[in-house]
Amino acid sequence: MTDSPRVVRKLTGNFLEDFEPGQVFRHKGGKTVTEGLFTTFTEFAMTANPLSKNQRYARAHGFKGLLVPPGLSMLVAFSQTVEDVSENARANLEYIDMRFGAPVYVGDTIEVETKVIGVRPSSSRPNLGIVHVQSTARKNIGGIDESVVMTWQRKVQVYKHDDDAELHAGEIAPDDVECALWLPEYEPGRDYKALSHLSSPDSWFEDFEVGTLIEHSRGRTMTSEHIHLTAILDNTSQVHCNQTMIDLNPKQYVGGQLIIFGGIPFVLCLGLSSPDVGDNALGDIVYATGRHTAPLFAGDTVFAASEILGKRDLPGRPDLGIVSSRLFGHKFERDEGASHEDAPPGWKKTKIFELDRESAVKRRSHYA
Amino acid sequence: MTDSPRVVRKLTGNFLEDFEPGQVFRHKGGKTVTEGLFTTFTEFAMTANPLSKNQRYARAHGFKGLLVPPGLSMLVAFSQTVEDVSENARANLEYIDMRFGAPVYVGDTIEVETKVIGVRPSSSRPNLGIVHVQSTARKNIGGIDESVVMTWQRKVQVYKHDDDAELHAGEIAPDDVECALWLPEYEPGRDYKALSHLSSPDSWFEDFEVGTLIEHSRGRTMTSEHIHLTAILDNTSQVHCNQTMIDLNPKQYVGGQLIIFGGIPFVLCLGLSSPDVGDNALGDIVYATGRHTAPLFAGDTVFAASEILGKRDLPGRPDLGIVSSRLFGHKFERDEGASHEDAPPGWKKTKIFELDRESAVKRRSHYA
Amino acid sequence: MTDSPRVVRKLTGNFLEDFEPGQVFRHKGGKTVTEGLFTTFTEFAMTANPLSKNQRYARAHGFKGLLVPPGLSMLVAFSQTVEDVSENARANLEYIDMRFGAPVYVGDTIEVETKVIGVRPSSSRPNLGIVHVQSTARKNIGGIDESVVMTWQRKVQVYKHDDDAELHAGEIAPDDVECALWLPEYEPGRDYKALSHLSSPDSWFEDFEVGTLIEHSRGRTMTSEHIHLTAILDNTSQVHCNQTMIDLNPKQYVGGQLIIFGGIPFVLCLGLSSPDVGDNALGDIVYATGRHTAPLFAGDTVFAASEILGKRDLPGRPDLGIVSSRLFGHKFERDEGASHEDAPPGWKKTKIFELDRESAVKRRSHYA
Repeated sequence: MTDSPRVVRKLTGNFLEDFEPGQVFRHKGGKTVTEGLFTTFTEFAMTANPLSKNQRYARAHGFKGLLVPPGLSMLVAFSQTVEDVSENARANLEYIDMRFGAPVYVGDTIEVETKVIGVRPSSSRPNLGIVHVQSTARKNIGGIDESVVMTWQRKVQVYKHDDDAELHAGEIAPDDVECALWLPEYEPGRDYKALSHLSSPDSWFEDFEVGTLIEHSRGRTMTSEHIHLTAILDNTSQVHCNQTMIDLNPKQYVGGQLIIFGGIPFVLCLGLSSPDVGDNALGDIVYATGRHTAPLFAGDTVFAASEILGKRDLPGRPDLGIVSSRLFGHKFERDEGASHEDAPPGWKKTKIFELDRESAVKRRSHYA
Repeated sequence: MTDSPRVVRKLTGNFLEDFEPGQVFRHKGGKTVTEGLFTTFTEFAMTANPLSKNQRYARAHGFKGLLVPPGLSMLVAFSQTVEDVSENARANLEYIDMRFGAPVYVGDTIEVETKVIGVRPSSSRPNLGIVHVQSTARKNIGGIDESVVMTWQRKVQVYKHDDDAELHAGEIAPDDVECALWLPEYEPGRDYKALSHLSSPDSWFEDFEVGTLIEHSRGRTMTSEHIHLTAILDNTSQVHCNQTMIDLNPKQYVGGQLIIFGGIPFVLCLGLSSPDVGDNALGDIVYATGRHTAPLFAGDTVFAASEILGKRDLPGRPDLGIVSSRLFGHKFERDEGASHEDAPPGWKKTKIFELDRESAVKRRSHYA
Repeated sequence: MTDSPRVVRKLTGNFLEDFEPGQVFRHKGGKTVTEGLFTTFTEFAMTANPLSKNQRYARAHGFKGLLVPPGLSMLVAFSQTVEDVSENARANLEYIDMRFGAPVYVGDTIEVETKVIGVRPSSSRPNLGIVHVQSTARKNIGGIDESVVMTWQRKVQVYKHDDDAELHAGEIAPDDVECALWLPEYEPGRDYKALSHLSSPDSWFEDFEVGTLIEHSRGRTMTSEHIHLTAILDNTSQVHCNQTMIDLNPKQYVGGQLIIFGGIPFVLCLGLSSPDVGDNALGDIVYATGRHTAPLFAGDTVFAASEILGKRDLPGRPDLGIVSSRLFGHKFERDEGASHEDAPPGWKKTKIFELDRESAVKRRSHYA
């Protein structure tokens, strides 16, 4: 190294005092969905919906090609907002009104904007506060198929950089963003029945019973793969990938180890629920609210369950119906000597995730 | 969660008593081979054949593009059958008459059907029995290039769900499935020699000597990556990815840990053998029989060897010959204090895999 | 296995005595860059330059599509040379005059040739010596866009196979290989400014100050993923993927464990530096010299810093300037009880990598 250069260390991301209601971030990067990204994330989570696995099936339903599942659209869009919004966050508190619009295909390029709609200090901790943002993802900006892919709000707990800094506290109304799920036409002439063996036989609209809780039968153990998965999403938050940072100051970090990016259990729970509730959906309409209730670490095994909350018609689409469900994610932890009703002796069941969900589901009467 | 919903837990997969000779499964899902899947599996196994690595080389040989290697076709097709056939299996006992047909390229969609041709109880263990199935994979169903990609039989040891259930025991003849390896024409006008430096210099048909055992020089250590690899194949068997299930009942599971999906060492052994026996093959014709002889776990290192069993002409193709070989996979395990002829002191050599194989191999006389 | 077949074990790669100045290797395989490979490597390293992430951005700058970043071109091209040049190497000593030429896109096929330009024995160790080679990578040979992608020299420390073998010692002049960075035209009519929010706001040519050392803010922990990453590059060197080989003879191998392929920290350091120095570069022109100064193992966290050494105009391109920088990679290791100026108490900072670099960087005056 040459003699004593001047050392520069840029701060990345924003801190609590940097946010101001009304402020808009046009996020860096943008991301084109490649077949590599598509495969990695569609499949690691055991997504079963053939719309995202079988090109002939997707096309026969009126999609242009393999459909990027909502969980992957969310991962790509959400991750674009991390550097500006949550690189210096302690926790992501809540997902609100996450709505899906245009279908996303391999080759589409997604770019995201975020508007700050609320800033408030933490009542208990002076070095923390809550930032409320609204983000909107568009695809193929400037192209003939430019369209809104999804929009959502989230509340995130962010650190101050300077504990004595003044906050731009306040709250404004969210924008009214046009974003309704695009659905392919139902064409009576098409032989949909010839494809019906490719999806679950018992997850048609007619099969759902309000008031049932479906415990999905499979679990999936997460490994240190989460570091790689998070990096290829461009999620730059250091708590997911910088072990030395944690080793140098373990008390500051949950569990003294790398925490898995919340988007991972989010899509994993969607995937685990897929054979029972998602396999015959043409798409997810909205996630009204969602939250992470416990951290996930490498070595944990994720399980999921779905409670069926409601069913109703989808106006103008006799071939489809709307299923409202609540998706739960959980893991089991050792609890020597203890015994809990919902877990084997010596173990306890910990809820890690919850998501309220509305899906547009095919009717057996029209498709099978 | 709302007040006491009715809890539903679907059983996935079939149990011994569910199988009946003559029964046909049209498997769910189907799978389009993306470039992501292609890269992950073609290369993790160190496959060296340029037909699957170098597009200009593949096209110059008369293929439409990069060729999906037989091991990957097998992984994709086989995995489609797991939920119906072996999700509740204890072990996969044997591969029989696995034959390859049409070439598979990125973008092709593979769908699989399976016919049950035998069911019998285990002599020793009342809660187990053996199911014998015949599966056939087609690509691009309904398309102009619809064709049979591969067909195979396997015997699998499956658990009963109810120990007292009656079995549909019996055996029927397998179907006669048309499936012969497609080979591109040899065009004397083409300058094949200009490409010959891209493959091994000593694995032409003329180079093989019957009665030699080639110990392939490389080994490959498997990691917990196997969980991700298995998931992106849609192989849903829980013994490969659900550590909590095993921790709750370790005695029931081999080694009390996640076992690596047999398809992984299958392709890894093919890949390790590739520079010495596969590099100048235009394709594998048939795997007459194969079996896993010991489990593989994360941390194990896989080695391979090939015994050359025979050589013969390929009728109508003077440019090619058929090489018959037996592929062996093995690993080394510590065995303190012991000394074995085929392993260093304190170690023992364990055979994990065996496969009888016939390949269509290029002759130096025509290609180099 | 049949009765006592004749056992054959091929040696792979070359040993010190096999190399001779003037000798040329046309390497096997060749490699087509798939979207799977592109995603895996562009993103695991946290590369931030939108030219490699955002297709609309890349096209608006005059590239045909997503641009393969220099680090990935290097990994693909370099790995093609491993079997012939360094499969039996102890260490890669130095990268010299690594220059980039034509842009690489998904779908391009890269093939590599290497010429031996020097061989000399090790002064200290009779079983070792240094081989000096010059490699050149071309894309799409025989196609209308055939072109040189990159060229470089390296010095590598190689083992002898037979300690008493005679060496072909000597040194010849490197070839004069035509390889200058291709740059898209600057088109005054284009609205580049409309894209400027997609890259870093403070890494334009005007922003760099000679004599500053930028400590890049992020770190990335490597895991056993490196085995998979190295395999899919076709890097066959056993020290990266064969744990049993090391367990059988731990003293012979650095740290008695698998060592991470140097190409991995190479691209990781480039990626970590990307937001601060690479984000607004149209390309890297040359890496004059580079070396690995300490080994990297699974579990280590990689950090990077860039010293700005110089700035100058790029003749004929008023929209661009050349930034000379030195890229440093380092990791922190525990050093109980010790205290070092450049590390927290109980830790020491270890330099792992150093690379001299010249980049063609956009000027704010023309692009923002």
